[in-house]
Amino acid sequence: MRPSSSSSPEPAGAQGPGAGPGLFDEVLAAGPVRDAVADRRWLAAMLEAEAALARAQAALGLIPAEAAAAITAACVPERYDLADIAAGAAGSGTPVLPLVTALRRAVPGEVRRYVHAGATSQDILDTAAMLVAHRALGPLLADLDGAAEAAGDLARRYRDTPAAGRTLLQHAVPVTFWLKAAGWLVALREARDLLVRVRTRRLAVQLGGAAGTLDAYGDAGPAVVRRFAAELGLAAPLVPWHTDRTRVAELAGALATAAGVAGKAARDVTLLAQSEVGEVAEAAPGASSAMPHKRNPVAAVATLAAAAQAPGLAATVFGAMVQEHERAAGAWHAEWRPLRELLVAAGSAVHWLRRCLSGLVVDEAAVARNLARLRAVAGETAGGGTGAAAALVDLALAAGDETGERP
Amino acid sequence: MRPSSSSSPEPAGAQGPGAGPGLFDEVLAAGPVRDAVADRRWLAAMLEAEAALARAQAALGLIPAEAAAAITAACVPERYDLADIAAGAAGSGTPVLPLVTALRRAVPGEVRRYVHAGATSQDILDTAAMLVAHRALGPLLADLDGAAEAAGDLARRYRDTPAAGRTLLQHAVPVTFWLKAAGWLVALREARDLLVRVRTRRLAVQLGGAAGTLDAYGDAGPAVVRRFAAELGLAAPLVPWHTDRTRVAELAGALATAAGVAGKAARDVTLLAQSEVGEVAEAAPGASSAMPHKRNPVAAVATLAAAAQAPGLAATVFGAMVQEHERAAGAWHAEWRPLRELLVAAGSAVHWLRRCLSGLVVDEAAVARNLARLRAVAGETAGGGTGAAAALVDLALAAGDETGERP
Amino acid sequence: MRPSSSSSPEPAGAQGPGAGPGLFDEVLAAGPVRDAVADRRWLAAMLEAEAALARAQAALGLIPAEAAAAITAACVPERYDLADIAAGAAGSGTPVLPLVTALRRAVPGEVRRYVHAGATSQDILDTAAMLVAHRALGPLLADLDGAAEAAGDLARRYRDTPAAGRTLLQHAVPVTFWLKAAGWLVALREARDLLVRVRTRRLAVQLGGAAGTLDAYGDAGPAVVRRFAAELGLAAPLVPWHTDRTRVAELAGALATAAGVAGKAARDVTLLAQSEVGEVAEAAPGASSAMPHKRNPVAAVATLAAAAQAPGLAATVFGAMVQEHERAAGAWHAEWRPLRELLVAAGSAVHWLRRCLSGLVVDEAAVARNLARLRAVAGETAGGGTGAAAALVDLALAAGDETGERP
Amino acid sequence: MRPSSSSSPEPAGAQGPGAGPGLFDEVLAAGPVRDAVADRRWLAAMLEAEAALARAQAALGLIPAEAAAAITAACVPERYDLADIAAGAAGSGTPVLPLVTALRRAVPGEVRRYVHAGATSQDILDTAAMLVAHRALGPLLADLDGAAEAAGDLARRYRDTPAAGRTLLQHAVPVTFWLKAAGWLVALREARDLLVRVRTRRLAVQLGGAAGTLDAYGDAGPAVVRRFAAELGLAAPLVPWHTDRTRVAELAGALATAAGVAGKAARDVTLLAQSEVGEVAEAAPGASSAMPHKRNPVAAVATLAAAAQAPGLAATVFGAMVQEHERAAGAWHAEWRPLRELLVAAGSAVHWLRRCLSGLVVDEAAVARNLARLRAVAGETAGGGTGAAAALVDLALAAGDETGERP
Repeated sequence: MRPSSSSSPEPAGAQGPGAGPGLFDEVLAAGPVRDAVADRRWLAAMLEAEAALARAQAALGLIPAEAAAAITAACVPERYDLADIAAGAAGSGTPVLPLVTALRRAVPGEVRRYVHAGATSQDILDTAAMLVAHRALGPLLADLDGAAEAAGDLARRYRDTPAAGRTLLQHAVPVTFWLKAAGWLVALREARDLLVRVRTRRLAVQLGGAAGTLDAYGDAGPAVVRRFAAELGLAAPLVPWHTDRTRVAELAGALATAAGVAGKAARDVTLLAQSEVGEVAEAAPGASSAMPHKRNPVAAVATLAAAAQAPGLAATVFGAMVQEHERAAGAWHAEWRPLRELLVAAGSAVHWLRRCLSGLVVDEAAVARNLARLRAVAGETAGGGTGAAAALVDLALAAGDETGERP
Repeated sequence: MRPSSSSSPEPAGAQGPGAGPGLFDEVLAAGPVRDAVADRRWLAAMLEAEAALARAQAALGLIPAEAAAAITAACVPERYDLADIAAGAAGSGTPVLPLVTALRRAVPGEVRRYVHAGATSQDILDTAAMLVAHRALGPLLADLDGAAEAAGDLARRYRDTPAAGRTLLQHAVPVTFWLKAAGWLVALREARDLLVRVRTRRLAVQLGGAAGTLDAYGDAGPAVVRRFAAELGLAAPLVPWHTDRTRVAELAGALATAAGVAGKAARDVTLLAQSEVGEVAEAAPGASSAMPHKRNPVAAVATLAAAAQAPGLAATVFGAMVQEHERAAGAWHAEWRPLRELLVAAGSAVHWLRRCLSGLVVDEAAVARNLARLRAVAGETAGGGTGAAAALVDLALAAGDETGERP
Repeated sequence: MRPSSSSSPEPAGAQGPGAGPGLFDEVLAAGPVRDAVADRRWLAAMLEAEAALARAQAALGLIPAEAAAAITAACVPERYDLADIAAGAAGSGTPVLPLVTALRRAVPGEVRRYVHAGATSQDILDTAAMLVAHRALGPLLADLDGAAEAAGDLARRYRDTPAAGRTLLQHAVPVTFWLKAAGWLVALREARDLLVRVRTRRLAVQLGGAAGTLDAYGDAGPAVVRRFAAELGLAAPLVPWHTDRTRVAELAGALATAAGVAGKAARDVTLLAQSEVGEVAEAAPGASSAMPHKRNPVAAVATLAAAAQAPGLAATVFGAMVQEHERAAGAWHAEWRPLRELLVAAGSAVHWLRRCLSGLVVDEAAVARNLARLRAVAGETAGGGTGAAAALVDLALAAGDETGERP
Repeated sequence: MRPSSSSSPEPAGAQGPGAGPGLFDEVLAAGPVRDAVADRRWLAAMLEAEAALARAQAALGLIPAEAAAAITAACVPERYDLADIAAGAAGSGTPVLPLVTALRRAVPGEVRRYVHAGATSQDILDTAAMLVAHRALGPLLADLDGAAEAAGDLARRYRDTPAAGRTLLQHAVPVTFWLKAAGWLVALREARDLLVRVRTRRLAVQLGGAAGTLDAYGDAGPAVVRRFAAELGLAAPLVPWHTDRTRVAELAGALATAAGVAGKAARDVTLLAQSEVGEVAEAAPGASSAMPHKRNPVAAVATLAAAAQAPGLAATVFGAMVQEHERAAGAWHAEWRPLRELLVAAGSAVHWLRRCLSGLVVDEAAVARNLARLRAVAGETAGGGTGAAAALVDLALAAGDETGERP
């Protein structure tokens, strides 16, 4: 195990180091989140945690400022070989031990004792997980906002276009065409608010030491935690949360909610795009080599495929909350993969949805034709409705950043 | 279908009308939530929704006040036969249509047209679901608080008792005995805060009419929604959420989180109560007919069994978010059962945990014996720790109603 | 706790004793399985297990034949009060202990020692679960066969009717109309074969005694197991499976598969029944009070709602496989509810599907109209196909009881 | 998109191309399955499918033998650039279209029309998935057998060693020490039998063409399918299974069962290895930098972490069974990732379990000490048992390849 001398600039696949996207990544792991949760991002985050921990201790006079500076200087991801770290993880069950070993070798001899001082592997890996999640949520929220903006544009443009409303996949009564888009908009905003709340308030550093007592820092423990958190821009927990996984569970729940919201809108698009319905088409539909007439709603389909991953992954995270004593025997390790996959799945879902909704082509003639059919069958019961629907669209559009409920 | 002339005072099983607890209910569906989500509570909530809707319209001058009074007077659960309503649900796919039919028969002829005016079945059932959930969360939160109080008591009492800390189910370093309980306390509080937030801000009435346009109320739609919400003590949504299920998803996520928190504490108790560990015993351990020496930690075991239900149920709710158009073809119906089961499972988990922690018997000699064994094996690395741990206990105890993060 | 003197003939809800179907049962728990898994069926199965155990021991000379006869005579479900048994379950964590106590009181004093001899609570409850599942699978398989027959009828009748094939919800190339039904038929048969295999080979008695050693029967243990199994018509396990839950997991997997197969066919029906597609309608579509023109495909919708329960429930069963030592601390208890719910959900799904497919009304004009539209758009690429499709239909119809693969 | 001129010999991470294991792979994706499901294996399998399809058609005289030979010659994975194929997948939603485009460029002009003739993308990808699964099951089954052998060795060696039996994590009655291992053995064999059955009978080729009619091959369709299957060593389906996903569901169920079986044994090891119990230790326990006295049961912990992934992943596969019409709009794509992850998770679980059980160190003195404690507390009720237990061990050991039930 030694710090590598060269940088490794190649892009990483969703799950590991590599030279490009994985075979299914452009479909199932599309958008910027895949890169934000790549292995080298985890490596960087672990190193940032080690560096911040050193600086926090130095700020409180627990270790020399020079030691913190030396550690920070050594915490450069390019100096470490991911494959070596990964290979070394088997021995202890986490990649932190091999990383710390390598980091100790990368600093001057007299500084070694200050590396990882007072921390346990889980402190570093949990903190890195929170950092990775915090950063991955940046582009994820941007895609969510982009999708909401596209939904809002549609709602605004077709605010007054009457259309067939459908319940249980049957014509019901008229609506305005994009009351549906207003509904997507509100749901996307709700998902965003939930994610923002978790990101801001619940993504916290982890620090407790071997059994969560913070005893290595004497009376300064809580102060170290606060400073550590401030260094990294994460929340400071009251006590260590080694086996209290509510933060992770809340993140998982919010991501699964966002994925579900994206899936709902995408399902609508696939249904509206059906050959017999024909009310919308994606701006860049998918090709078929054998059937040149096809205009597959690939973005909506990929949104649905990604969204379908979320419930099972969230269930795995919830199930892993039952952790033993001071640090768990398996349940903690069980979180790593579903948490990352959930970020990727929710990120891919909202990224594809944004592409799906941006520039969605509306066939107003088809909308009118389907509505006429409804009116022909339903007769007088199908009257009215569109004025009230337009007012609801206005409400949704005007709400701006509010989630929708008035307490 | 007719209003029954007699009341039906018998208690209901978790899932339906009946003469007592179901066969497994006292183990898997223990505590007050089971009754709070029973069929007759749903029936009552649906009737409350119909009555409140009438009153809201009357308040806005949309229907005569007398009509609202007559409808309210007829909305007495005992006048309706649950079995009839249930049997009638097959035809339309929900129990609302048979209930509305029966309600119309129960009011004077000239009032009939004002019953359920402008509403669709889903408006009533969703609103009832939110009411049922709101009320079930009352006793659930009380049990959560009771469990937290018991955890706090343990943490306070054994604040300074040194004990073996365990990671990966191996002795690690000393902690104070009830740093662990302080961790439970913090987690229980976090779960409560999450549930309280969802209960207060996200449980909302549903009102949209056939396709979610509110068109039956003309310009007054949004005002009717607000008044309807005020009548029932629920939040008022910006727009109908017939196929935007973020509210339900957030509730499911919060319940799964609470169940996980309960499961973690219960797992610890089962481990601490092992014959070879012997640090705790439940106040009323379970009996075994064949093995009189056994003191089974039945409350902890039942907590774990209930908690294990939550991840799969929450996944079903998340998966049901992908709903079609204005009202879904199956996914909405798919929510009813897991939502109720999730309330029951989380409720049973926290109820059993409260019983488990209240009066938990600590064997201080066993605690000391195990710690001595740790010190004998670990030697000098096992020094210190308990002062810092006690300080953390104090932090947890002092935090009161705060969840723990400082942003 | 005492045997009740009167019988309780009332029908039970899905989850407990009661006076009729639960509020949502006719939608979500339709068909005969609900009754087959009702509490009183579990009670009866537990008593059958106790009686069979006594007879098996008598047959091997371990207990007097008279004792076995007396025990068998006392094992009459109507003599026991379900509510009492249920209430008594809280103490030990299972309903077996109170039942055994009541059973001992119901036999002559000198026979008491032979009741439940050598058995542990889990022996009786696991055996009862297997009996209940075995019996519930009877009507479930009948509904599965009924649905398959209806699918076969459709495939046969419309074998040569050309229709639009659809991929990604877009028109693709022509197929014959009921190649789709032939696909349902094959899938339903596969699901049946899987369930039949599990039912015949994997549903086994449980017998091991307190820690699974069978030691109470001396050398006769394995012989008692075989005789016990023969008495009940279940398989005999090689060794006790108290914490080897592969049998339960295989049952759960097969039920989830059957539910998924039903859901696929139902999804197709909801899509074909859309107002714009109009190729099929259910024979008895659902009503809407507000929209008399609607013909909701309620049977297909209810099939989908039931099918959606299965993945989460199966996951809970799989997750509960991780059981401790000789008998588990929670994971075993965690199985009871999802196993029952899974039987109900799969049973309801196939029951509704049978209703959905039986008498499904085909609008051949709509089929032709949609196909013409496909041909108009797709042009020459849409040629041919229907002869080969019809040949595939013949293959599916001719396969009879085979699952479809030729190894 | 063009065939790359150079080979890419580097090993791949679990999820994509790369230069080594992913950061968590050695913990969560250990063993040979990770490589067996790597991207380049999928690429190779897709090419094998294309080549076999050409040969099958040639064998039936549908295309020239020279064309099949040319196509087979071009189906060399090293000639294709994975990153290009992956990048091209976004357009159509699968990597097959870009691969077929590249393959057509790699054959002589007059052969191009015979590439992928009569097939649709899903035919190739489904067939590749079955090939990949078939091959991944090879080493997975070898690890399963290795774990079973280790369990058998333990059961044989400690057949007569009395030990404390434990139920609900409490001392119950004596057992022989490795009755527990005999239970693991039987469960591992059951899991193997299930997997072998799925592998042999249910992993089938897919072939149907655009809408599953096989019409491109005229009357020869079924014969092409059989020949295609024979070329690849997979089963031949009766009809295309594009939207009948029972095969995939059965595979998922069997993998989840295997993971659960591994998790159960690993849970036992973590419990037996507890500091206070001390009956076993792993041969190569995990290290802790801060606590040199620790002997973490890392192999058991990693087994548990991998096993915990399975239920949620299986649920995703079951949930994806509800597929639309002739080919699905999202649910098919939703299978790819969980199927691969499930192979990896189950493979990692059994690989780690094999390492855990091989050379497990038994501390007979600790076993005796704990048993003495049980006898001291339980007194006379704890008598006997070990003779019968040893007989059960013999039964389990003698059963060889049988699954355990005697119908």
